[in-house]
Amino acid sequence: MDLESIRLTETVKKGGCAAKLPAGELRKVLSGLALPKPPNLAVGTETLDDACLWDLGNGQYMVQTLDFFTPIVDDPKDFGRIAAANALSDVFAMGGRPKVALTILAFPSAILPMEVLRPLMDGAVEVIIRAGACLAGGHTIDDETLKLGFSVTGFVDKGRAWTNAGAREGDVLILTKALGTGTIASAIKSRKAEPAWIRAAVDSMTTLNDTGDALDDFVIHAATDITGFGLAGHALQMAEASGVSFRIDADSLPHLDGALKLLEGETLNRAHRTNAEYAKNYVSYEGVSQARTWLTVDPQTSGGLLIAVPEASADQVASRLAARFPATRVIGRVGPQGSHRVTFHASR
Amino acid sequence: MDLESIRLTETVKKGGCAAKLPAGELRKVLSGLALPKPPNLAVGTETLDDACLWDLGNGQYMVQTLDFFTPIVDDPKDFGRIAAANALSDVFAMGGRPKVALTILAFPSAILPMEVLRPLMDGAVEVIIRAGACLAGGHTIDDETLKLGFSVTGFVDKGRAWTNAGAREGDVLILTKALGTGTIASAIKSRKAEPAWIRAAVDSMTTLNDTGDALDDFVIHAATDITGFGLAGHALQMAEASGVSFRIDADSLPHLDGALKLLEGETLNRAHRTNAEYAKNYVSYEGVSQARTWLTVDPQTSGGLLIAVPEASADQVASRLAARFPATRVIGRVGPQGSHRVTFHASR
Repeated sequence: MDLESIRLTETVKKGGCAAKLPAGELRKVLSGLALPKPPNLAVGTETLDDACLWDLGNGQYMVQTLDFFTPIVDDPKDFGRIAAANALSDVFAMGGRPKVALTILAFPSAILPMEVLRPLMDGAVEVIIRAGACLAGGHTIDDETLKLGFSVTGFVDKGRAWTNAGAREGDVLILTKALGTGTIASAIKSRKAEPAWIRAAVDSMTTLNDTGDALDDFVIHAATDITGFGLAGHALQMAEASGVSFRIDADSLPHLDGALKLLEGETLNRAHRTNAEYAKNYVSYEGVSQARTWLTVDPQTSGGLLIAVPEASADQVASRLAARFPATRVIGRVGPQGSHRVTFHASR
Repeated sequence: MDLESIRLTETVKKGGCAAKLPAGELRKVLSGLALPKPPNLAVGTETLDDACLWDLGNGQYMVQTLDFFTPIVDDPKDFGRIAAANALSDVFAMGGRPKVALTILAFPSAILPMEVLRPLMDGAVEVIIRAGACLAGGHTIDDETLKLGFSVTGFVDKGRAWTNAGAREGDVLILTKALGTGTIASAIKSRKAEPAWIRAAVDSMTTLNDTGDALDDFVIHAATDITGFGLAGHALQMAEASGVSFRIDADSLPHLDGALKLLEGETLNRAHRTNAEYAKNYVSYEGVSQARTWLTVDPQTSGGLLIAVPEASADQVASRLAARFPATRVIGRVGPQGSHRVTFHASR
């Protein structure tokens, strides 16, 4: 097989974070699981955070996360870059600095030449190094379909960790990347995506959620990164963990080139529907178009940060972030707990 | 579908650590990868150790590993227990105490009811708690076949970490569990395994490689756990990392009930052959029977520890270990670097 002619997305049914198990069903089955929480575990599974926090007893938390998925793009090197950026981003989303990555690799040796591994891992290592981390091991299995991901560990000073649980009434909500990777991925697979749309989506997905020192001078109440459950799913988890409700202007949401057009034509994958199903009891829509409603549940791979900050510093924070993440937008407000966790409304 | 009638091994082609990618090919493809090694990374990928060691700067190493695989037994709870014990054991194999586990789960919702998740995770959590660790998160995807595993992090005092690289000439080699899980798993799948063989294999695979305080009074030069590459593969990696050669008495190797009989009938899986292929340039056999030759490359799931200790304390170490791990045997000796990394010989 010619390496150039390989189209990774043709080897799988579902790509990227769209291949997550339905969140609602997962919650139901696992809700009864008795999970003891030792004193060192500051954040575990209970707030559905991006990563766990383990108190090292030296003033720092260990921040740990893992993520893996099937190809969302056709080029092996790009897929490696995206898989790494996506996994590393969960550590950045907790305010941490990633240091160690371990590979999770399922490789279909029956349908892909082993040589694909090289660009795949080259791409991943490039992004891991860019994040300031190193690749220190991992595990590979032979499998029916390609899956790549990483377990990533980082560290954060205890006073500077961000979680899902701190959003407060009056806060402003900021989103740092455009939405729409799920519908663009579906279009890549069905050959409906224009080359420029693919390039922009790959650029976005390979961008690390590394805010560097941009937010060092500001108070951040809560942060998460938007991945498989879409903006609606991750926003409702943050609102629930914080005991508040969000109002988000659906017309202000940044979107990738081509995404709205594809969603108007209902270029969807299964995760759009399962995310909508998961969100429906917690999320309401006021006058939002059908395409933008789909955008709110579009499953993101290596999506941006959703950040809740005090109103007084919101404009400054947004402009600092925009210098690194051009798609950054103020998208809504935190209010008192209402009948729905999240309300998406049309611009007035 | 009736939960009782589910046979997990029928849903996959290859089970357990037998589903690893061939080690030789993997090495070849990835050997050129440029992996920077930051100063804090005391052990990374270069010695093919079970886990990486990251210097926390407070007198401790963080020990981190991950492992995942397809079902090796039919019962979901047993599979959960085995997957957890297998992943946790890599931390024990470095001398560490596991503290945090994150789930790696690929679930075939099209062919298995979601209810299978509950016993699966119950079994895993039971073993994680027994190991002194906690489950703090993870990632699940919908997939063609079931895979379960864990990323596990533990800690060890810097002076007490065990690696692959310290075996010395004159050391005695001790193995703590019986070999043969690969052939028993193949027999389970093809319905050739007797119930007593299955029970003994499950008991062995759910036993944690936790040596507790048994070795606190002794110097341990090197340790690893035996998993997918078999005794031959992991022994040659330890010998290579240590710059020595091993002589192992093949007739002294502990084996699970039924394993030799199955291997005499060539109840093999693909990993027996790929492990033999990987080992053939580094390993020699002197008068060893065909069945015992296969036993040396039998892919182990949650296999035992291979430990190199100074001769003077070897008997004491072996008897301390035997109190916890009844299959413990002295299996060989460390010698100067020879023409082969490992030689398996018949008893004289």
